[in-house]
Amino acid sequence: MRFADLRKQVLDANLAIVEAGLAVLTFGNVSGVDRIERVMAIKPSGVPYDELEAESIVVVDLDTGATVDGDNRPSSDTPTHLVLYREFEGVGAIVHTHSVAATAWAQAGLDLPCFGTTHADHFEGPVPATRELEQDEVLENYEEQTGDVIVETFRRREIDPVRVPAVLIDSHGPFVWGPDLPHAVENAVALETVADLASRTLALRPDNQPISSHLLDRHFSRKHGPSAYYGQPR
Amino acid sequence: MRFADLRKQVLDANLAIVEAGLAVLTFGNVSGVDRIERVMAIKPSGVPYDELEAESIVVVDLDTGATVDGDNRPSSDTPTHLVLYREFEGVGAIVHTHSVAATAWAQAGLDLPCFGTTHADHFEGPVPATRELEQDEVLENYEEQTGDVIVETFRRREIDPVRVPAVLIDSHGPFVWGPDLPHAVENAVALETVADLASRTLALRPDNQPISSHLLDRHFSRKHGPSAYYGQPR
Amino acid sequence: MRFADLRKQVLDANLAIVEAGLAVLTFGNVSGVDRIERVMAIKPSGVPYDELEAESIVVVDLDTGATVDGDNRPSSDTPTHLVLYREFEGVGAIVHTHSVAATAWAQAGLDLPCFGTTHADHFEGPVPATRELEQDEVLENYEEQTGDVIVETFRRREIDPVRVPAVLIDSHGPFVWGPDLPHAVENAVALETVADLASRTLALRPDNQPISSHLLDRHFSRKHGPSAYYGQPR
Amino acid sequence: MRFADLRKQVLDANLAIVEAGLAVLTFGNVSGVDRIERVMAIKPSGVPYDELEAESIVVVDLDTGATVDGDNRPSSDTPTHLVLYREFEGVGAIVHTHSVAATAWAQAGLDLPCFGTTHADHFEGPVPATRELEQDEVLENYEEQTGDVIVETFRRREIDPVRVPAVLIDSHGPFVWGPDLPHAVENAVALETVADLASRTLALRPDNQPISSHLLDRHFSRKHGPSAYYGQPR
Repeated sequence: MRFADLRKQVLDANLAIVEAGLAVLTFGNVSGVDRIERVMAIKPSGVPYDELEAESIVVVDLDTGATVDGDNRPSSDTPTHLVLYREFEGVGAIVHTHSVAATAWAQAGLDLPCFGTTHADHFEGPVPATRELEQDEVLENYEEQTGDVIVETFRRREIDPVRVPAVLIDSHGPFVWGPDLPHAVENAVALETVADLASRTLALRPDNQPISSHLLDRHFSRKHGPSAYYGQPR
Repeated sequence: MRFADLRKQVLDANLAIVEAGLAVLTFGNVSGVDRIERVMAIKPSGVPYDELEAESIVVVDLDTGATVDGDNRPSSDTPTHLVLYREFEGVGAIVHTHSVAATAWAQAGLDLPCFGTTHADHFEGPVPATRELEQDEVLENYEEQTGDVIVETFRRREIDPVRVPAVLIDSHGPFVWGPDLPHAVENAVALETVADLASRTLALRPDNQPISSHLLDRHFSRKHGPSAYYGQPR
Repeated sequence: MRFADLRKQVLDANLAIVEAGLAVLTFGNVSGVDRIERVMAIKPSGVPYDELEAESIVVVDLDTGATVDGDNRPSSDTPTHLVLYREFEGVGAIVHTHSVAATAWAQAGLDLPCFGTTHADHFEGPVPATRELEQDEVLENYEEQTGDVIVETFRRREIDPVRVPAVLIDSHGPFVWGPDLPHAVENAVALETVADLASRTLALRPDNQPISSHLLDRHFSRKHGPSAYYGQPR
Repeated sequence: MRFADLRKQVLDANLAIVEAGLAVLTFGNVSGVDRIERVMAIKPSGVPYDELEAESIVVVDLDTGATVDGDNRPSSDTPTHLVLYREFEGVGAIVHTHSVAATAWAQAGLDLPCFGTTHADHFEGPVPATRELEQDEVLENYEEQTGDVIVETFRRREIDPVRVPAVLIDSHGPFVWGPDLPHAVENAVALETVADLASRTLALRPDNQPISSHLLDRHFSRKHGPSAYYGQPR
């Protein structure tokens, strides 16, 4: 089997989002990239998670989207993943789910505000919601346009996708990423948790305000970058 | 054992809704139809799910409702199922649950609006709530009248039950269907998820609006009909 | 071991409420009565569920409350159980939990309205909340006074405890009962479900109204009394 | 292995909070103290719970915070734990989590009111929320300042940390403690339950009032202190 390692890791990450309660039925998909081989491996379209095997994973060309290896049709969201890998440097893996707490924010079309340190540990600021897609963007190359509107959101609002590794697609759900598969899965679990926390917080206090920028910076930098001191030395 | 295959499939589907968290105690029931033999197989009345066996499943005549095979009394909701099979072509299986998120919408007597693509992937528009039953409809042939009010809802509002395979019975709970048992179960899981999503979305944004018709059409037709491209070729 | 059967059944029912997600830590307790021997068997006080054995169950005299058999101290709520057995004929088992959905209604001091058929299948009308206990009722014989206020609630409001087998103790939580241990556990699971349903329904529709009396009667009598046709013939 | 017993108990308590659903990913940490040896044992920083072993637990000096034994870096929250052990007599173990119901209250910056006996059984009054940290407290010795603001909260408001063994750190989450590891874990589970109950209660009744002082005293003293009669004699 070609790309055996990448496939195995992508398989494991797909199973991890089910284990974490982020996906039911055939909802969601995880991909990983090999930037040297310029290929992406992704879940096949519409296959239940309990039928997935390493061989089911589809390997596609990062530039053309053509299938390089695998017998299945890749996820219908493949063009969205490809746009993100091409446009966002430093992204090594992408997780798309319809996890309920985060998807509620996406359906409401609202940025997810940073109400606490759990959020700040993973996302250095609000997780942005995209604008609604225009009719022509839905009718033509819909999945690629979905990727484009994510990129537009981060560029226009000057958000660094490495420091805010998630987005809420209007009326759809979250895309989450990271430098590698384990971190992308971790960020997807964290996003669902902080989306749930934010909903519960607003129910208690509808006018709740985001945390201060110094607390946000402190927590994000505690885990990321040169002054990080969370976790074990590597 | 007669109708062994049908019974086994109906048993598995009943167990699947428990596994998916849609039923506790003896709530809910699943049936499947054999339109050539003109019989329906359904869960027996009031039997706990963990005591169900293929032999417990009751086979009834599609036209008369009389038991064709089986020692148990069929589900008390049997007449509702029979009406739906008779009146809705293309329905091969029916799932009735009291799953909490969908039942809350039924108890509120509100149509479940389409707030996102998770909904649009399964239901081409809002899932309708029936009107309240009149006193005489409750007093006489209650379960059959329940079926009749479902049919009335779809006819009067010109909803195609193949494209919106679910209904919310006022003050009661959801009935969900599909072309076969696995799809009916899938739709029941999807309905519970989108009902939960819609409640969470409204909590964040009480004036939230349904998604655009082009996004609705795009997602439904991505999975259903001649232009479907979701899933694997069959 | 004396009262071995009763103890075993009470043990099983205590474990069943943990299995059903109605109890954590040492919260809650289940008892069963033997009206011929005039004894009640109940969970010991403060013992974690995973350490319970049939021998841990305490057997007390129905009239005096004195321990008849068993090495443990009985549940601190024992006097409440005793009052209910003495005053409510036809009660064979009692379940007390702090299950979250029902306890929220108790903490709010609100009757749980009948918003749907899931409720009507088990409780023939709203589940009443007691009044708040007076200071002297809390200071002296608190647990017995808790039983007395339950009895007062049903008598004053002319509610039949056989037809509404549950109560919400103000600022505390639910007590639920039934003719035997399995039915008491079933009613406790049903109460938690309908309390959750009612909260979710009100979140969608704050002015939601109870179901009609004919629908209430139909569903309750479908499962209870001489005209019941739900379940298998016995 | 030095401090083998303490390490094993701290390991078990860390695993218990995962089992109880209070922690995902690497969120949270539990410590235990040995006041005779003047050491504290705590979870290592950023290590997933399923990789923890007794040997992973880090033992630090209670006075200096220096590592006494263990190859890992201790939890980044170590300075907070140390302040609490030094300042609060009678605290034998500390649990920090980001459990969702309690963290929502912390993010809202609101005291958790005592709405029922479940709360009164564990906390003799509202669980206080700290004030927001000042910018300089976040920038310098942040984790130690977090401990200091907890101590300030209890001192200024004259709350006895033995009778209210928990706090809500503004914009962060709960710290919970107890005389030993099992009780600290029990209190953390209880806090999450009562936080959930309080949120659900307010959703039903936004103006809900705390329980009376006599009911609060009765329930707390039923389980704690010289007149306790809950549980088995020891």
